[in-house]
Amino acid sequence: MDVRELLRQVQEGRLGIEEAEAQLKKLPYEDLGFAKLDHHRKLRQGFEEVIYCSGKAREHLVRIYRTLSEEGIDVLGTRAEEEQYRAVREEVPDAVFDPLSRILKVERHRKEQVGKIVVCTGGTADVPVAEEAAQTAEFFGTSVKRLYDVGVAGIHRLLSNMEAFEGANCVIAVAGMEGALAGVAAGLVDVPVIAVPTSVGYGASFGGLSALLTMVNSCANGITVVNIDNGYGAGYVATQINRLAAGGRESRR
Amino acid sequence: MDVRELLRQVQEGRLGIEEAEAQLKKLPYEDLGFAKLDHHRKLRQGFEEVIYCSGKAREHLVRIYRTLSEEGIDVLGTRAEEEQYRAVREEVPDAVFDPLSRILKVERHRKEQVGKIVVCTGGTADVPVAEEAAQTAEFFGTSVKRLYDVGVAGIHRLLSNMEAFEGANCVIAVAGMEGALAGVAAGLVDVPVIAVPTSVGYGASFGGLSALLTMVNSCANGITVVNIDNGYGAGYVATQINRLAAGGRESRR
Amino acid sequence: MDVRELLRQVQEGRLGIEEAEAQLKKLPYEDLGFAKLDHHRKLRQGFEEVIYCSGKAREHLVRIYRTLSEEGIDVLGTRAEEEQYRAVREEVPDAVFDPLSRILKVERHRKEQVGKIVVCTGGTADVPVAEEAAQTAEFFGTSVKRLYDVGVAGIHRLLSNMEAFEGANCVIAVAGMEGALAGVAAGLVDVPVIAVPTSVGYGASFGGLSALLTMVNSCANGITVVNIDNGYGAGYVATQINRLAAGGRESRR
Amino acid sequence: MDVRELLRQVQEGRLGIEEAEAQLKKLPYEDLGFAKLDHHRKLRQGFEEVIYCSGKAREHLVRIYRTLSEEGIDVLGTRAEEEQYRAVREEVPDAVFDPLSRILKVERHRKEQVGKIVVCTGGTADVPVAEEAAQTAEFFGTSVKRLYDVGVAGIHRLLSNMEAFEGANCVIAVAGMEGALAGVAAGLVDVPVIAVPTSVGYGASFGGLSALLTMVNSCANGITVVNIDNGYGAGYVATQINRLAAGGRESRR
Amino acid sequence: MDVRELLRQVQEGRLGIEEAEAQLKKLPYEDLGFAKLDHHRKLRQGFEEVIYCSGKAREHLVRIYRTLSEEGIDVLGTRAEEEQYRAVREEVPDAVFDPLSRILKVERHRKEQVGKIVVCTGGTADVPVAEEAAQTAEFFGTSVKRLYDVGVAGIHRLLSNMEAFEGANCVIAVAGMEGALAGVAAGLVDVPVIAVPTSVGYGASFGGLSALLTMVNSCANGITVVNIDNGYGAGYVATQINRLAAGGRESRR
Amino acid sequence: MDVRELLRQVQEGRLGIEEAEAQLKKLPYEDLGFAKLDHHRKLRQGFEEVIYCSGKAREHLVRIYRTLSEEGIDVLGTRAEEEQYRAVREEVPDAVFDPLSRILKVERHRKEQVGKIVVCTGGTADVPVAEEAAQTAEFFGTSVKRLYDVGVAGIHRLLSNMEAFEGANCVIAVAGMEGALAGVAAGLVDVPVIAVPTSVGYGASFGGLSALLTMVNSCANGITVVNIDNGYGAGYVATQINRLAAGGRESRR
Amino acid sequence: MDVRELLRQVQEGRLGIEEAEAQLKKLPYEDLGFAKLDHHRKLRQGFEEVIYCSGKAREHLVRIYRTLSEEGIDVLGTRAEEEQYRAVREEVPDAVFDPLSRILKVERHRKEQVGKIVVCTGGTADVPVAEEAAQTAEFFGTSVKRLYDVGVAGIHRLLSNMEAFEGANCVIAVAGMEGALAGVAAGLVDVPVIAVPTSVGYGASFGGLSALLTMVNSCANGITVVNIDNGYGAGYVATQINRLAAGGRESRR
Amino acid sequence: MDVRELLRQVQEGRLGIEEAEAQLKKLPYEDLGFAKLDHHRKLRQGFEEVIYCSGKAREHLVRIYRTLSEEGIDVLGTRAEEEQYRAVREEVPDAVFDPLSRILKVERHRKEQVGKIVVCTGGTADVPVAEEAAQTAEFFGTSVKRLYDVGVAGIHRLLSNMEAFEGANCVIAVAGMEGALAGVAAGLVDVPVIAVPTSVGYGASFGGLSALLTMVNSCANGITVVNIDNGYGAGYVATQINRLAAGGRESRR
Repeated sequence: MDVRELLRQVQEGRLGIEEAEAQLKKLPYEDLGFAKLDHHRKLRQGFEEVIYCSGKAREHLVRIYRTLSEEGIDVLGTRAEEEQYRAVREEVPDAVFDPLSRILKVERHRKEQVGKIVVCTGGTADVPVAEEAAQTAEFFGTSVKRLYDVGVAGIHRLLSNMEAFEGANCVIAVAGMEGALAGVAAGLVDVPVIAVPTSVGYGASFGGLSALLTMVNSCANGITVVNIDNGYGAGYVATQINRLAAGGRESRR
Repeated sequence: MDVRELLRQVQEGRLGIEEAEAQLKKLPYEDLGFAKLDHHRKLRQGFEEVIYCSGKAREHLVRIYRTLSEEGIDVLGTRAEEEQYRAVREEVPDAVFDPLSRILKVERHRKEQVGKIVVCTGGTADVPVAEEAAQTAEFFGTSVKRLYDVGVAGIHRLLSNMEAFEGANCVIAVAGMEGALAGVAAGLVDVPVIAVPTSVGYGASFGGLSALLTMVNSCANGITVVNIDNGYGAGYVATQINRLAAGGRESRR
Repeated sequence: MDVRELLRQVQEGRLGIEEAEAQLKKLPYEDLGFAKLDHHRKLRQGFEEVIYCSGKAREHLVRIYRTLSEEGIDVLGTRAEEEQYRAVREEVPDAVFDPLSRILKVERHRKEQVGKIVVCTGGTADVPVAEEAAQTAEFFGTSVKRLYDVGVAGIHRLLSNMEAFEGANCVIAVAGMEGALAGVAAGLVDVPVIAVPTSVGYGASFGGLSALLTMVNSCANGITVVNIDNGYGAGYVATQINRLAAGGRESRR
Repeated sequence: MDVRELLRQVQEGRLGIEEAEAQLKKLPYEDLGFAKLDHHRKLRQGFEEVIYCSGKAREHLVRIYRTLSEEGIDVLGTRAEEEQYRAVREEVPDAVFDPLSRILKVERHRKEQVGKIVVCTGGTADVPVAEEAAQTAEFFGTSVKRLYDVGVAGIHRLLSNMEAFEGANCVIAVAGMEGALAGVAAGLVDVPVIAVPTSVGYGASFGGLSALLTMVNSCANGITVVNIDNGYGAGYVATQINRLAAGGRESRR
Repeated sequence: MDVRELLRQVQEGRLGIEEAEAQLKKLPYEDLGFAKLDHHRKLRQGFEEVIYCSGKAREHLVRIYRTLSEEGIDVLGTRAEEEQYRAVREEVPDAVFDPLSRILKVERHRKEQVGKIVVCTGGTADVPVAEEAAQTAEFFGTSVKRLYDVGVAGIHRLLSNMEAFEGANCVIAVAGMEGALAGVAAGLVDVPVIAVPTSVGYGASFGGLSALLTMVNSCANGITVVNIDNGYGAGYVATQINRLAAGGRESRR
Repeated sequence: MDVRELLRQVQEGRLGIEEAEAQLKKLPYEDLGFAKLDHHRKLRQGFEEVIYCSGKAREHLVRIYRTLSEEGIDVLGTRAEEEQYRAVREEVPDAVFDPLSRILKVERHRKEQVGKIVVCTGGTADVPVAEEAAQTAEFFGTSVKRLYDVGVAGIHRLLSNMEAFEGANCVIAVAGMEGALAGVAAGLVDVPVIAVPTSVGYGASFGGLSALLTMVNSCANGITVVNIDNGYGAGYVATQINRLAAGGRESRR
Repeated sequence: MDVRELLRQVQEGRLGIEEAEAQLKKLPYEDLGFAKLDHHRKLRQGFEEVIYCSGKAREHLVRIYRTLSEEGIDVLGTRAEEEQYRAVREEVPDAVFDPLSRILKVERHRKEQVGKIVVCTGGTADVPVAEEAAQTAEFFGTSVKRLYDVGVAGIHRLLSNMEAFEGANCVIAVAGMEGALAGVAAGLVDVPVIAVPTSVGYGASFGGLSALLTMVNSCANGITVVNIDNGYGAGYVATQINRLAAGGRESRR
Repeated sequence: MDVRELLRQVQEGRLGIEEAEAQLKKLPYEDLGFAKLDHHRKLRQGFEEVIYCSGKAREHLVRIYRTLSEEGIDVLGTRAEEEQYRAVREEVPDAVFDPLSRILKVERHRKEQVGKIVVCTGGTADVPVAEEAAQTAEFFGTSVKRLYDVGVAGIHRLLSNMEAFEGANCVIAVAGMEGALAGVAAGLVDVPVIAVPTSVGYGASFGGLSALLTMVNSCANGITVVNIDNGYGAGYVATQINRLAAGGRESRR
């Protein structure tokens, strides 16, 4: 089952070449190198065990949380419902639910929060998505500065808070409707800006499509975009960048 | 042929009632009231004779310009081609063509330029559309302040020129790509902002659709939007607003 | 905290230059000029305190209304729900709710209504959006003439009411489905027409997109467009134009 | 080869039942009834031989015209190019080409033109599509009244020409950009209005999509729509309706 | 208030010319000719009083039905709800509701049903829209032949029922999903085919857009299209065509 | 009523030629050849009696199931609801419902399951659609291997299970969100891959449109696509291919 | 470099286990099993060496053809230009170019053409795409029956040619505009129908999108769809299916 | 003109407070703090002077290059045309143009290339966009590893080159058509993946929209997206991340 063991058996004559070759083809992929790297990646980075709760059956979800919690593994669940929380809590009493970000987590090992990222929003309606981003990043050990309701329709709100961006390794800009915050922010800072369009808006906002197009078309340097309402995805990438910056490449090893 | 004359003939018994009624129905609409209002509007406001040149046959276009110029009427032509200009010039030597705005005009009566509007652009590529707007407004007697290349990716360019907006009755914000300039501008001034999305951009800008959606979705107060690349339309409305402001309602009467 | 005070302390030698420079950078933006202009704008124009109620938490909304009402400030809330109204009313008994326009307002200082705008609709189903526009304009002190159900499918309904437009400084045309009212209206009047597409319709109306496109593509002069169902935005811009016209630029100062 | 002959041979014992059954299955469909109806339809109505010229190879097109013309059959070709015309003319000298409508026809038998339809357009740029419609209808023997450049942005142009619609059995309304002409026309007449959106326009007209949506969403009674720029299709249906009206059902038999 | 009376007063010297001219401008449009035509149209054709019930307030709807029914006028209501019916029935006991077509009508004067149209559908799920079309046409005095569930996926179902089309003046083809029925039908008959796309389908049918595009793009001759699910519109136009055909032009007068 | 009988009567002189010809035209299509082929097809292949349950009235559905079950015919119902099942079960006690795939079937004749297809999914949320595909194929006698949750974001999950594809005649790849599974799978196997986009996802997935476009644009060889969420359609085609492969052409006869 | 050789060296003690493990990870993927399978697939099936010519630099393309032709390998190039052909021909004189299908091939080993597929089109304008499909299939050894211009607007053209489908293992239906051919065909045959939407059409055909949607939404059983104009892709899948059917699974091994 | 000087004059009594306040408001924004930060950013990071050449007038472009080159500043021009290069070269002989990436640069100061990023493509047609990304990053001092033509349709090409990703701080994945490369890559590495959709493809790829949607919807962790064909933007962000990683936050100061 293990490449090394297989080679040893070949070396020791206990396994024929043809049979070895056949087994090599059938070995689970993870034993052939890439999967191992993969496991290393997860363990090394603490990105383990993220659960997308939306639509999962209650019993199924409870089982996942109970099993992981019994194994002492922290869990980050996204897009959870209040009633999913109540079900999980009965089995895992220290599960915590935030109705704003809809994050349902078990977090027994408090990570040191390193580096710095900024999560800013255009309006107050964008805060749930922003909190998903911020709490995801915090769960993975990133220090987060929040700066909400600084949309470009009142540009002074952003400009008078520029000191909040000092020392940040990455900025997450969350905005719906016109979605212009990301472009303005990217013109003011010198680190990557991850733009998160939200489905906030009405009329021709088309569920966030308008904000997505605005952000993708921004002519400011340093912007990249994630899916509509995908706070989790932004928090994940921001953590990757923050770790690269905080420790430098060497410290990650 | 004239309502008043018709009524007089009825009064004087020279025209029977049935025949009068029949003629009333057949009179050109403009003789029945609304059209007169309509003509009044054009004469009073100097918005007469705008020609959309694009796609017009050369001979047709030359005839229009020659006729109007012989009648002493000024003409504003939009979206003209260089070769249309050369053809017109042979018959109307004082026709003027601006290859940037593609405006081909005959302007013998210089209007006094009243009030003030500002035309600003996000980038230099938006200037042709902005010039169509600015020169349209100027042709109709509006004083125009230009402020180009002040897009939000470098917000300081706009902010350090705020004094340009002082005293303006209306702002035209011309921008392609992400199109965020309009929203930021509307948050900084207290007069109507007419947003002109442009087809400038590539990739997911979809010929200006992205900028149009951004502008329509802006949550800043005071923004309205015209069609993609429609500098003329913006210049027309800005002139309407500027006239309302410059003279007040009374002076228009 | 105030620029003038800071300069005075520098003048009087109570504040060093380096420290003054540092404080200047950190002063809230509104103290550096643009924000002051901004505050001036709001106070001068009476556009203060508009609340977008949709989606706001009940306690949050009640607190906003109570605080502002205690400070004697009038409030215009848009897109409010019946139950939000009931909650606000318990703390602010003179709050008024109109279920048609969904405007929830506290209006203790009745403004004089100046100038004139016309709000017209294509059908009766467009009336809620029209009322949001009309009541917004009225809240800000604009005199409003309503002209409902005059869509182009029966053009005589509009034509036989042309006198309603007399003396108007601005027209708001609200229409769903085909959305052609705005273009026809703009051809009949000589003031700006603000077109409001509505989500009224079915089939290929795509939630108002069809009407939005119709209005943006209108070849009539003088039309600008706001977002689908955005009665508030139209009422705001119409008020800006009406003020410019009613008083002239000078009187606004 | 003919059903009747086949049955006769069966009757006369010259053809076995199994073989007859097999032949019935293999007979060209048009011999089994529906196709006959089909041929009847074409002959009876004079809708024979319409060629969509666009993209056809020159030699191919020439062959079609020569063959049909040798057989004495009139041909209506749509979307032809100048150079296709020149090639056809060499073989069929009495072929006629109209560069405006791009119709390339051979018409030796002048049909009596019966009934009446009206073809109207919003602007002059819509005229080529309108001419395709009008000339198609005329080719098929329909009397056509043209009424061009009566778009809704200047509604009096349409209203002052209402007498043109008198006695019409059908109206074809051709318009690009906002496309509102069809809805207004349908509100003014009491016969079917066939709406033809055109690709005329720029910006958010999206090649006629905006006009198509406007027309499909019209709330006026009596409108149906054909494809963008499909003047031919409108002319065809208008002819069907005109014939039904002109002769009544009985006379068609 | 009446043109004839006004002219008489001028003739008799009881009304001055200037005052007469002013009144002419203010007279309700319908008194100037076009509106009268309009009223004639409605009375002559029996298309009076169609109510789009969807979204109408209950009390409002009841009042409309009661008033019209007291005046002895028949009413056709479309897109009605069960509970609207129950409310109307209390005041107008002979109101009739069909939950399939959602038509709520008061029909005391049974019209003679003349001519013939065919209403066919692709599947059974399209029947509600088809019934709206059929019952609309019948309400207006059209004889209707129904042919349901003859979609092109089993083309023999249509082909084996071709005799149903005999003598029809118009065909309404109702289909969702791929929407190909209209094109096939138009290839088999020689009268106008009105295509009604329905929102039936799932996945990439996009609420009927796919069927709408299919029908608009059909290369069969004689097809025109109405809005998605617009059975009423199709029934109305079909009635117009059927009347033109049934009586010939003369009989309509 | 039968072609052969008709021909016999003609042969025997019991039926005149004209009458025979007339009857031939009126015979149900299925008696003229193509329909017979059609019936043969259904009987031969066992694809009879598939019911699309969604939206069908309860009584209607029960009647269908009862009738078919009384005739001893197996039935496959797709997109059924729990309550439809309960209603059917009362009359047909051996009806079976799977809430995951929403298949409601009566299956008394267990078919031998021949050949092999693979049904794989990108995520667990795609399983309902995959089960519709798999159970459809099994109902029609296809042997199915399931391989779920092997999406490309963790490519090792697919690669370490490649042996599952051995001997398969066809692969069904079910995926939402980015939908890349189909392209990767097609690069790894040498049989047709039927791609089923699902509506799983959020934000810019647009109800499966994104996955549909991904799959249609795949540059891997051997992919074809069905409608969003159309597991049934994929299962049907896979069965066709599997039968062709399992038996060869000859055995199908 | 070869797994077998590596294992042998381990067996013979010439290679240490750690080094062997390291080499295993670095071996080209194709040596680890999947790639071999992959190569097997290509060699076994004769799908080797297809070149997408469009956009390839001339020198680059010539080199590919020369190299392969020197190695005696047959090449199928798709979407080639006339001038690419001329360049290739200079180096590979027996290269053959078909300007209709734009296939540029070197085919020295004539394959036996087995089984049968049908390629049919809606119109003559769809023939280039159909030829790409047909010639691709033929290049890979498939026997192809062509049936062109049998679109559904004249359904008898298809019905009177049904015998062409006899014995076919797969049908490729190529159609633009409304794209309904695929659905009708699938209702008439009992083998998989691969639908190829084409970009043929104008107006609302949107470059083939309309046909694509029609085909994806077809409710006929047995249809799957490839990308717009993707004749090659359809020819490839049809070949896969034809081989499965022609030989049965066994014969492929 | 300088804040510090202004404060000094206030301190020394040479400038009154009111005048100082007025000047503060008018000072160019860059003198008020944020702009200085802005300038710092550019100088510190070497991101100065990027020119988007597309559409720029020749004389204009030459002037920019000459001026900057005379000042000894390196310039990176993107989307340049061959003829723009020829014009620039006459004045700036050491300008270098790469027709593949269309980068036109003057690079006299060779930067040390630090860190590591990987640029990979799905196909060879994506290489021009990839080169724009790679050369942009290199211009800004980033070490780049290229890995082209490793699209997911042949997944072994990517998997057998996994060692290329070792030590990379960031991956740029460039792909058109289905665009699935980014998701697969992100599942295999543990650093941010910047996805660049390209306009490569045909049919339903809609100029890159399909690839954009695929990438935005990817469920792999660590992906962010830039505009279609925006290689420059990806190269810029990748450089930001690489710098953060290479030096750690401290070294950037």
